[in-house]
Amino acid sequence: MIIEPWALIDHRPDSSPTARTLFNLSNGRLGLRGALEEDRDIADQGFVNGFHETWPITYPEDAYGLARVGQTIQPVPNPTAFQLVVDGEVFDPHHSRIDGFERRLDYRSGQLTRRLTWHTDAGATVRIESARLVSMVEPGAAGLRYQVSVDRACRLDLTSYLTLPRTSHEDGTLDPRRGTQVSDPLVVIDSGVTPGLHATIATRRAGQTMTCVMAHEIDRPALGSCLGRPLADLEQGATDAHNLDGQATDTCADDLSQTTAASGSAGQAPGPRSVGETGDRLSRTVSADLAAGQDCTLTVLACFDPDAERAWSGLDRLQRRGWDDLAAAQADYLDHWWRSADVTVDSTDPAVQGTIRWNLFQVLQASACAQGASIAAKGVSGSGYDGHYFWDCESMVLPALVHTAPTIARRILAFRHATLPQALERARELSLKGAAFPWRTINGQEASAFFEAGTAQFHINADITYAVNRYLRATNDEDYAAGEGIDLLVQTARLWADLGFFGRDEHFHIHGVTGPDEYSALVDDNLYTNVMARTNLELADHWLAHLAENQPDAHTRAITRLGVTDDEREVWRRAAAAMAMPFDPDLGVHGQDAHFLEHEIWDFQGTPPQNHPLLLHYHPLTIYRHQVLKQADTVLAELNRPDLFSPEQKLADFDYYDPLTSGDSTLSASAQSIMAAEVGHMDLAESYFLKALATDLDDSHANAADGVHVASAGAIWSTLTMGFGGLRDWKGLRLDPHLPPSWSRLRFRLRIATAVLEVDITHDDVGLTLITANPDAPTCLTVRDRPVSLTADAPSITIRLTH
Amino acid sequence: MIIEPWALIDHRPDSSPTARTLFNLSNGRLGLRGALEEDRDIADQGFVNGFHETWPITYPEDAYGLARVGQTIQPVPNPTAFQLVVDGEVFDPHHSRIDGFERRLDYRSGQLTRRLTWHTDAGATVRIESARLVSMVEPGAAGLRYQVSVDRACRLDLTSYLTLPRTSHEDGTLDPRRGTQVSDPLVVIDSGVTPGLHATIATRRAGQTMTCVMAHEIDRPALGSCLGRPLADLEQGATDAHNLDGQATDTCADDLSQTTAASGSAGQAPGPRSVGETGDRLSRTVSADLAAGQDCTLTVLACFDPDAERAWSGLDRLQRRGWDDLAAAQADYLDHWWRSADVTVDSTDPAVQGTIRWNLFQVLQASACAQGASIAAKGVSGSGYDGHYFWDCESMVLPALVHTAPTIARRILAFRHATLPQALERARELSLKGAAFPWRTINGQEASAFFEAGTAQFHINADITYAVNRYLRATNDEDYAAGEGIDLLVQTARLWADLGFFGRDEHFHIHGVTGPDEYSALVDDNLYTNVMARTNLELADHWLAHLAENQPDAHTRAITRLGVTDDEREVWRRAAAAMAMPFDPDLGVHGQDAHFLEHEIWDFQGTPPQNHPLLLHYHPLTIYRHQVLKQADTVLAELNRPDLFSPEQKLADFDYYDPLTSGDSTLSASAQSIMAAEVGHMDLAESYFLKALATDLDDSHANAADGVHVASAGAIWSTLTMGFGGLRDWKGLRLDPHLPPSWSRLRFRLRIATAVLEVDITHDDVGLTLITANPDAPTCLTVRDRPVSLTADAPSITIRLTH
Repeated sequence: MIIEPWALIDHRPDSSPTARTLFNLSNGRLGLRGALEEDRDIADQGFVNGFHETWPITYPEDAYGLARVGQTIQPVPNPTAFQLVVDGEVFDPHHSRIDGFERRLDYRSGQLTRRLTWHTDAGATVRIESARLVSMVEPGAAGLRYQVSVDRACRLDLTSYLTLPRTSHEDGTLDPRRGTQVSDPLVVIDSGVTPGLHATIATRRAGQTMTCVMAHEIDRPALGSCLGRPLADLEQGATDAHNLDGQATDTCADDLSQTTAASGSAGQAPGPRSVGETGDRLSRTVSADLAAGQDCTLTVLACFDPDAERAWSGLDRLQRRGWDDLAAAQADYLDHWWRSADVTVDSTDPAVQGTIRWNLFQVLQASACAQGASIAAKGVSGSGYDGHYFWDCESMVLPALVHTAPTIARRILAFRHATLPQALERARELSLKGAAFPWRTINGQEASAFFEAGTAQFHINADITYAVNRYLRATNDEDYAAGEGIDLLVQTARLWADLGFFGRDEHFHIHGVTGPDEYSALVDDNLYTNVMARTNLELADHWLAHLAENQPDAHTRAITRLGVTDDEREVWRRAAAAMAMPFDPDLGVHGQDAHFLEHEIWDFQGTPPQNHPLLLHYHPLTIYRHQVLKQADTVLAELNRPDLFSPEQKLADFDYYDPLTSGDSTLSASAQSIMAAEVGHMDLAESYFLKALATDLDDSHANAADGVHVASAGAIWSTLTMGFGGLRDWKGLRLDPHLPPSWSRLRFRLRIATAVLEVDITHDDVGLTLITANPDAPTCLTVRDRPVSLTADAPSITIRLTH
Repeated sequence: MIIEPWALIDHRPDSSPTARTLFNLSNGRLGLRGALEEDRDIADQGFVNGFHETWPITYPEDAYGLARVGQTIQPVPNPTAFQLVVDGEVFDPHHSRIDGFERRLDYRSGQLTRRLTWHTDAGATVRIESARLVSMVEPGAAGLRYQVSVDRACRLDLTSYLTLPRTSHEDGTLDPRRGTQVSDPLVVIDSGVTPGLHATIATRRAGQTMTCVMAHEIDRPALGSCLGRPLADLEQGATDAHNLDGQATDTCADDLSQTTAASGSAGQAPGPRSVGETGDRLSRTVSADLAAGQDCTLTVLACFDPDAERAWSGLDRLQRRGWDDLAAAQADYLDHWWRSADVTVDSTDPAVQGTIRWNLFQVLQASACAQGASIAAKGVSGSGYDGHYFWDCESMVLPALVHTAPTIARRILAFRHATLPQALERARELSLKGAAFPWRTINGQEASAFFEAGTAQFHINADITYAVNRYLRATNDEDYAAGEGIDLLVQTARLWADLGFFGRDEHFHIHGVTGPDEYSALVDDNLYTNVMARTNLELADHWLAHLAENQPDAHTRAITRLGVTDDEREVWRRAAAAMAMPFDPDLGVHGQDAHFLEHEIWDFQGTPPQNHPLLLHYHPLTIYRHQVLKQADTVLAELNRPDLFSPEQKLADFDYYDPLTSGDSTLSASAQSIMAAEVGHMDLAESYFLKALATDLDDSHANAADGVHVASAGAIWSTLTMGFGGLRDWKGLRLDPHLPPSWSRLRFRLRIATAVLEVDITHDDVGLTLITANPDAPTCLTVRDRPVSLTADAPSITIRLTH
């Protein structure tokens, strides 16, 4: 693969699962994995965020309060497949004789395009170009285009398919990072070929529905006799084939009769039927006799919606817009995105820039049109991790969005508030006050079936409110503060106050939890958890005070609605102030938890390389009792609360934990990079950054096949801005840049309230420029220790960095 | 129910699951639950120790090294059912008009007998007596007897059934203490009615087989015309009915033709077939016209064996012996047992003595004929806990056997050595040296599907070797020491040396384990585990030294076989000496683990009574993070190693932990009683004792239905001898008696090597009498601080107790 600054390019027809991930197109709502147009095994290659099946979790040994409702994302009908037949010869990119193959994912056009030349056995030269997009402006929309030109007269049969989903088989290998296989999850409610290919499916138990409808348009400058009719006619008379064997129905467009037998089974099924294992397909074939030099373009528009009526009306709208308009809107949208989100580096390694953009593009692809949903661990690029939402969203992806696309961030945050009722209910099940958000979920209910690394990760509640605070600080969104924001802050603060307790040492302790580092479990006073809980308690109190000052009426309403008392807030303040912070005076480092530093140190020397990731080669008990980390959550704590730790302490902690960090989590490298930069280990910072950068493109964790590591992609933005840019946003925006030796320049932009600030960093200075000024207030920040205030009148400054 | 000194008596026809447990008959090999003779729902009421099905454990979230092979005990064919029809009227103990009903489980005859009078609707008075035994001398044998006498001429049809097993349905309620339901586990290999009722079943995946064969004998002083033939004829011509509807086949013995249709399906099935849900039955009916005053007795002998040939030859042997001989042998065996095992108390509560004997009888019933098997949590009295073997056997039941029936103890211990290969393999899976015995198992493989309270309970390895040592000390069995004993000791010592490590504080630590108290999990330095590991390490070293001194050749062989090095032993000694023993100087008590005392104390006040046991009402996370105990394992540690804790310390620890002990484990009350007696809380000692005593007879944990709590029953012996008798056996036998105020006397006997010592305790003195002297050595012990040595010449002494 070739990494260009604005595109990912492949010169061979790679249908591997990993390639399908890397070339996926998605918009946070709809995702179509990057199969080749001619691939047949694509029944599980399309997803809609949150479209899932539920199933009863059964435990071989049960216990009270365990999660009961399994949730697994399900594939949706996939409109990406085509079949091209020229003079009876089927085009197969893997076996046909081709040259000039190039597939390109372009981050500015937002299209996946492909071009190649096919030399048929019969001697024809066929030029094939295709393009595909998942619209950033029409949440349920995909567009596909397949263009053929020939060097001599040929008979051409081009089929477009709507491939119905199936679920894949359990292959028996152990990898808890993969999705769960649910048996028989889907029902086809309806499918047919008129007025366009369409299918409505439902998940059997969760009762969710999804309709995909398609429109086809043939557009050829010099049209052959059999296709010389307007679109409407073509649509009416399209060939329909309920095609199970992959052979195109060889019907000339001159005789556009329906293949009635197949149509009957696919289009007029008497009732719901299960989707077959082989993946049923609906198809539309256009046939033509092309003259030498002629070309032919088939354009397909597809619209997805849970409601069939809305799908059809959405398709109407798409048809009115047409491909060109959708493509133009896509490019406009991306231009807008890159103007905020682009991060540019001048590096000696030319691939770095393109890889950064691939990652940032994935952040957008995972989030842009999400609505009523969060961001899954794999976005909508695959079914890994069951399509579940974790803390990844709030902790790793939202930071990139809050300062670049706050409207998206706001929509994503809405999911947690919408599922607050489930979180309140879950807290009751756990005998706790307030709200306990699920460790992993689609529908708001806890779906983690391993509570030790699931429900025990209470920190997710503080991660959510940390994101709330991050959003509020970046946007000054007072409405959100007074409504959803304060609800989340208060209910999670209540959880912490009840979960923890004042110990004999008068510190506030939180016991029996699991931190982000899943290589320890059920520990006491996990440093990350305690720091974040403390922050949660402080923030709830802070934003209540903020409301009282800035929106007295809203404050009164919130207090009443939530029943907050002064006594309660006093407990929050006391608990936050007294929060236990494990520290070992002998080692001079913070404990990852109260007792971590007492454990035996993992024998890294005696661990062969093939035994990574450790979780696939060692019993959890073996891992838990050792000092070994999947990721350094002590580092995360110190990144989130820079005020609580001295520079010397951060250095000591980093130097202690870094050698213990296996990096088996894809979330690890970016955090290590940021902290390495802060403590001055610039070589390490760069090497960790490059490791994080390559997570998917190098498939360094050997599971890119299951989908994009969206959290890792999101963390690339943080690594650049927080790591090398030294950005911190805790009680005041701060920059403390440190470029890696091999870079000469780093530029990024930040949305701060209504302002847009460009940051331009070299080894010697930092340039700050207000691209857009905030009319209401100066934009204030600190560069190293120097306060800076920018306004429309004084929008720019350059600050010399002294070393 | 009435509790007599030597019998449990019921005056109503109680077919409840609990009654079936309380009246079960078993011998450690075969168990027949106490259904009434006429009960039809008995397809899952007979068990053979270790006869199980395996199944693949699937986890909703998987991990490396988790247990893969589920194992669940399966029912065997049940020969206990009869049907009596008099003049066409079916006897139903629940609905027929009866008086004088008495059911009696007699601990000296080892029989379950029943007598009643039935007043038929037709006006006849029918006297029915039945008896049942599971032989203590013939491991696979059961005998049943059904006797009828009438007050006027009657037509009598008496049917004996062999009921084929079925598995019960999952009822969806949560109770992890119950057994797992395996789908479709059993196949009927063969069944038929000639030469006697017989059935061979197999478990589908585990491939275990079990045959039950039956012989019937009719024996009536004045025989009616139709039955006046010798047994052999009767057998040949017996009525056969494959009877599914429970109606007796109404065939006069004058016409002993087979009911061919039914016979065909049951007796000549062409191949294996699944057992139906309704529980198929084979039957034999005898019919007779009785004159007034006549009686009729049907005697049934049944023999179980995995091998069909051996089952038939075993049945031949039983027939040659006959009922009377089996009954006599049973009484002889029990007489012998009670001469060693009986514990008598003179208490103001007359029920205490009988309840003690019921419990001691259950210890024998769970163990007497076990061979190639251990003692399951429910013995063979039910399917609770899947028929699995836990630490219960070695820790709670073997103490009672070692000093009363050492031959049985030796046979039970053999199971662990036989499964040492699996334990060595399991240690490899856990990345550990030595042997890691499974927390729960039937076939030697780990079957615990919740590793936090399963595999994490490494203490089972030390529990096993503690039992080995206990047995060796009680018996001086040098052969065992040199062979199986030393193998177990060395391989488990290796485990501990590798599992733990020398920490920064130079203590030896064992982290990430779970102690017997399952209300904490994955803790560091669980006191019980560390004390027992230390003991394990010391014992391995000790018995190697013992062998070197006493059996130099055997020592050399063992060293060679096991590859033990001096360096290795030096590590064991160092680790044992440096073993961490959590102690809190501020509280002045030992920590249950390194950090237990830092936890929040459970809100017992705020816990409504109906929320016990806690495990059924609180999430494990809620329980784990609090100071709350299912059972006090600190107490257990102090009982096993009295030398390591001062009396003051034991008192302080008991007083701290007792209020935190929920007693949700049935293993809790007995340990609390013993320690309460030691520290001088005699009222508490007595009340805990009475609680332990009533575990099953009062069904105080609401699950006696699933089988006898054999560990609790075994612990009754320990509570009496160790608690009130003050018996300890660590580096010297010691007695320090303390009777409860309401008792005037306590007597028990101990086998010590070849000696039998009777201990006779009052509030004022202790009488010691050698019932059998050891010809090789004096029998030495300490009473309080006074050394005593008894020989054949001076076999008796009375020691005054000063208070």
